[in-house]
Amino acid sequence: MRDHGGNLDEAMRRYGGAPEDWIDLSTGINRIPYKVPAIAPDAWTALPGRAAEDALIAAARAAYGTDAPVLPLAGAQAAIQLIPRLSAPGRARIVAPTYNEHAAALRGMGWQVEEVATPEALAGADLAVIVNPNNPDGRRIEPARLLALLPLVGRLVVDESFADSTPALSLAPQAGREGLIVLRSFGKFFGLAGLRLGFVLACAADAAAFAQLAGPWSVNGPALQIGAQALADRVWIKATRSRLEAETGRMDSLASAAGWRFAGGTALFRLFETPDAAQAQAHLAQAHIWSRIFPYSRHWLRLGLPGSEDEWGRLGNALAKIRGV
Amino acid sequence: MRDHGGNLDEAMRRYGGAPEDWIDLSTGINRIPYKVPAIAPDAWTALPGRAAEDALIAAARAAYGTDAPVLPLAGAQAAIQLIPRLSAPGRARIVAPTYNEHAAALRGMGWQVEEVATPEALAGADLAVIVNPNNPDGRRIEPARLLALLPLVGRLVVDESFADSTPALSLAPQAGREGLIVLRSFGKFFGLAGLRLGFVLACAADAAAFAQLAGPWSVNGPALQIGAQALADRVWIKATRSRLEAETGRMDSLASAAGWRFAGGTALFRLFETPDAAQAQAHLAQAHIWSRIFPYSRHWLRLGLPGSEDEWGRLGNALAKIRGV
Repeated sequence: MRDHGGNLDEAMRRYGGAPEDWIDLSTGINRIPYKVPAIAPDAWTALPGRAAEDALIAAARAAYGTDAPVLPLAGAQAAIQLIPRLSAPGRARIVAPTYNEHAAALRGMGWQVEEVATPEALAGADLAVIVNPNNPDGRRIEPARLLALLPLVGRLVVDESFADSTPALSLAPQAGREGLIVLRSFGKFFGLAGLRLGFVLACAADAAAFAQLAGPWSVNGPALQIGAQALADRVWIKATRSRLEAETGRMDSLASAAGWRFAGGTALFRLFETPDAAQAQAHLAQAHIWSRIFPYSRHWLRLGLPGSEDEWGRLGNALAKIRGV
Repeated sequence: MRDHGGNLDEAMRRYGGAPEDWIDLSTGINRIPYKVPAIAPDAWTALPGRAAEDALIAAARAAYGTDAPVLPLAGAQAAIQLIPRLSAPGRARIVAPTYNEHAAALRGMGWQVEEVATPEALAGADLAVIVNPNNPDGRRIEPARLLALLPLVGRLVVDESFADSTPALSLAPQAGREGLIVLRSFGKFFGLAGLRLGFVLACAADAAAFAQLAGPWSVNGPALQIGAQALADRVWIKATRSRLEAETGRMDSLASAAGWRFAGGTALFRLFETPDAAQAQAHLAQAHIWSRIFPYSRHWLRLGLPGSEDEWGRLGNALAKIRGV
């Protein structure tokens, strides 16, 4: 399996401890999740029905600000698996470095994949992929700059898995245009990654193609119910945006005091430049705090946000000991 | 969308009533489900991890009686979506009539699909598909007769979605042989179709190909937990097999008294030959009992088993009124 965050099994194998001993900051998943409501018995027992799916789609449209076709899938990852099949393999370009599953899925289906450094370098590709804001460095590209690319590529995939805190950055209101595919993740911002829920926003023809490839009942019943409720909960969404914004500042201060340079991030994770990322990860792991480092960088270390004062305290202590390492 | 059971939304649109007014017998889903346990918070919040997946795989291997590679997917349907991609499109044969998604998925990926009447007629196909026991007519093919086909086809897919009550019929103990792909469904026998869980049993190379196509985290966290617990619950499995066997007899008697001829079935559904299937379905629907009829047959009507004495009573009353219709 490719290198990912969230592999706490691997952390425990190397550094010991039980799951409850660890603070997993290796992902960008919100550690103060949306409270799972009582699940309707039918959501478990029956095949997911049209009415439940329609309710989820309506909530997603309102939350993301689009009237375009919206297709729920089993996570943004499920969409990434299907994108290479929307057309015959050709030349894909991806703004890199970024989430490594895009390139892997495309290469696995016979696409020629070129990694480029700027959005403008996507021009000419049959399929162009950009993650916005980007993972892991948080780089943000304004919507107008991406829209200008639309006529210059076959399809433009904008992966907005980390855009929940920056709605002004989203191309969701532009979804429905031919050639534009917007991906949204549910589990990261709402802290329910185990649910497996994400969305494709696309023109009618592409949405229908995704639906055909995914087949019926691709999203589980509890996800339909929880997703519809959570996406409609404007109070929770607003409060969570405010909290995350405050906490990113707190995280950046802690890291700065440890001598790390802020290198970017989103509301759900922060990227730091460290003297030696592998050593920094090992140091945090001794305190049973799991972080993310990257095979292509000796210095980058990514941290999600702690979920409680106890977790903040443990992270602060571990970072204080790192100072000068 | 193709014609399926489970479309209660459609039933309500045509015949009124709220979901709680209806008895949905249009599927083969057990209406007395495995009791959903308390879900571990991590199952909702974290990305599904390797340890949870390994525990589920171990439980599935023990339950199905195989040491072969087992891959959990989001329902047997998820496997059906991927089968056409294991190799370049060629000539597929399917023993028909059967579950219509196999042919649809293959044709959608450019396969030439021929429907045949007997297992032996599968010989020569690049990909051969048989549902055993079959849906909707319950036809059962002995394992030896299927194994004899293995050298005569490119790949043999045996969809055992309804085999939980007939373990002696299963090819799971033979799984791992090159070219043999066995599909198992979790949601039907355990009555938890909303969970989206199924399994592929295959040789290592094919299992790896499925895993690559499905991508990471394709099964949700609660499904990993519930599936592992339920598949290891031998007491529940044994009691449910006994109950279903008794209840199929009760169903057949009711239908026979209504003048319908038993045409086949499994422990989870029964198929009857009626004078006019559309009329029979409409008659049951007036009593808010939803059944399944088939576009290719004017006489076949399929019924799942009621889940309570109240439901049995309502079905008995509705069938008594049908007598002679």
